[in-house]
Amino acid sequence: MTELSFLVKLDARQKETESLLCVGLDPDLEKLPKGISRTPEGAVEFLTKLISETAVFAAAFKPNAAFFEAFGEKGWWALKEVISAVPKEIPVILDAKRGDIGNSAARYAHSAFELLNADAITVNPYMGSDSLEPFLCYHNKGTIALCLTSNPGAVDFQIPHQLYLEVARKSIEWRKENPNVGLVVGATQPEFLAEIRKICPETLILSPGIGAQGAEMKSLKPLVSTSGNPRILFNASRAILYASSGSDFADAARRKSLELKEQLHGLLT
Amino acid sequence: MTELSFLVKLDARQKETESLLCVGLDPDLEKLPKGISRTPEGAVEFLTKLISETAVFAAAFKPNAAFFEAFGEKGWWALKEVISAVPKEIPVILDAKRGDIGNSAARYAHSAFELLNADAITVNPYMGSDSLEPFLCYHNKGTIALCLTSNPGAVDFQIPHQLYLEVARKSIEWRKENPNVGLVVGATQPEFLAEIRKICPETLILSPGIGAQGAEMKSLKPLVSTSGNPRILFNASRAILYASSGSDFADAARRKSLELKEQLHGLLT
Repeated sequence: MTELSFLVKLDARQKETESLLCVGLDPDLEKLPKGISRTPEGAVEFLTKLISETAVFAAAFKPNAAFFEAFGEKGWWALKEVISAVPKEIPVILDAKRGDIGNSAARYAHSAFELLNADAITVNPYMGSDSLEPFLCYHNKGTIALCLTSNPGAVDFQIPHQLYLEVARKSIEWRKENPNVGLVVGATQPEFLAEIRKICPETLILSPGIGAQGAEMKSLKPLVSTSGNPRILFNASRAILYASSGSDFADAARRKSLELKEQLHGLLT
Repeated sequence: MTELSFLVKLDARQKETESLLCVGLDPDLEKLPKGISRTPEGAVEFLTKLISETAVFAAAFKPNAAFFEAFGEKGWWALKEVISAVPKEIPVILDAKRGDIGNSAARYAHSAFELLNADAITVNPYMGSDSLEPFLCYHNKGTIALCLTSNPGAVDFQIPHQLYLEVARKSIEWRKENPNVGLVVGATQPEFLAEIRKICPETLILSPGIGAQGAEMKSLKPLVSTSGNPRILFNASRAILYASSGSDFADAARRKSLELKEQLHGLLT
């Protein structure tokens, strides 16, 4: 069986669910609800339950590598378990923000795509096009580069001299090699969204900042592609995962993901 | 016993050894010499031997996280073993090029500094100052940000609009919070070295590109600080590790590291 490419899988998933929601998986042991052990094993139990409850509303899942690395020796095992718990029709984006060159980048790509079996990875474009090459050469896999991030520090290097636009323009070249290219564009920067979407009308955009980071929904409309597929994922992590710290955590996460999915659905009309 | 800060440890090490050499630890299973098993266990055996043979000429060791991640489940164990094998008076720089914000960056810092016990880490500055903050708040630990890298892709985003100079200037602010700040400046970009050193005369610079990447030694002189401590590390990885693929690999690595150390010593006079 030929493996579906990341974008084909995502387009199909979004067509079926009409969902723009990406559920971020950031396992924070200190925030695990009552009744779940505050261990890597507990985090896997928690996330497996969360995935099963929210899957129906999720266009994608995004495990955050940092939270798993912080488990130490158990981190790899936990990350692999969590990725395996995602139903196979839902794309998994490994949020790792890796960025290196040559052999090193090839190792990160091998790890994400072949060992962990993620459908896509987030990468950092600072080192330039050759640092993305070892990811792009996996033709069925997604490579999602930081463009304009949702944090205050975006003003330090991304916004002066419009570096984020340079990255968006360069992504058009990357996309010629592999259409499964995406950009991370923070939902908290509404004034910049339309110009980025104009440069790359068909490129997938992954947008963090809804939910806990609190971006206004209606300001996000320019990010939705008008090319036929929405090519946009809005990520929420904490707002869903930790919607309740009680034993009703799974119900609360389900309700929150439904609520966000429905709010985001308004952007499609 | 109070832990020595990264820079104090490095300055002391460089004073004692008069070495500017950082030995990069990039375990490539396919390149392991004859007689060593091509497994994570073999890589640990190989690197432990390498560390013991080259330590006398090394100002620092730099394990590359990508190569360990590619081992999968055994990666964490192997990395921890290798870091533990470094004599405690020699600083360990974890080359991970991490870059994220808030809780995620804090997890990467926790993992590198507390779980793996590295003295310093390389980070990617694309997301701005707040992405470095969770590393900088470890006051005894080193945070070494990519500035001007040694790969062809440096021309994509770093060199246009002089982004590398913006990073160098910003590092002066970071240094006020924590003197253990460094910059990665590739040895393959000789025409830019003097201006970077002028902006940050006392900042540690980690310079990849000697050895296998082949930068000319004499062009590197501007990177040596004239502030009293050299504040420069030149990294070689493959040229030392894989100096011989035969059973004489340890001797060959020792000879190569001595040769590089002596060539670099010429920059001090």
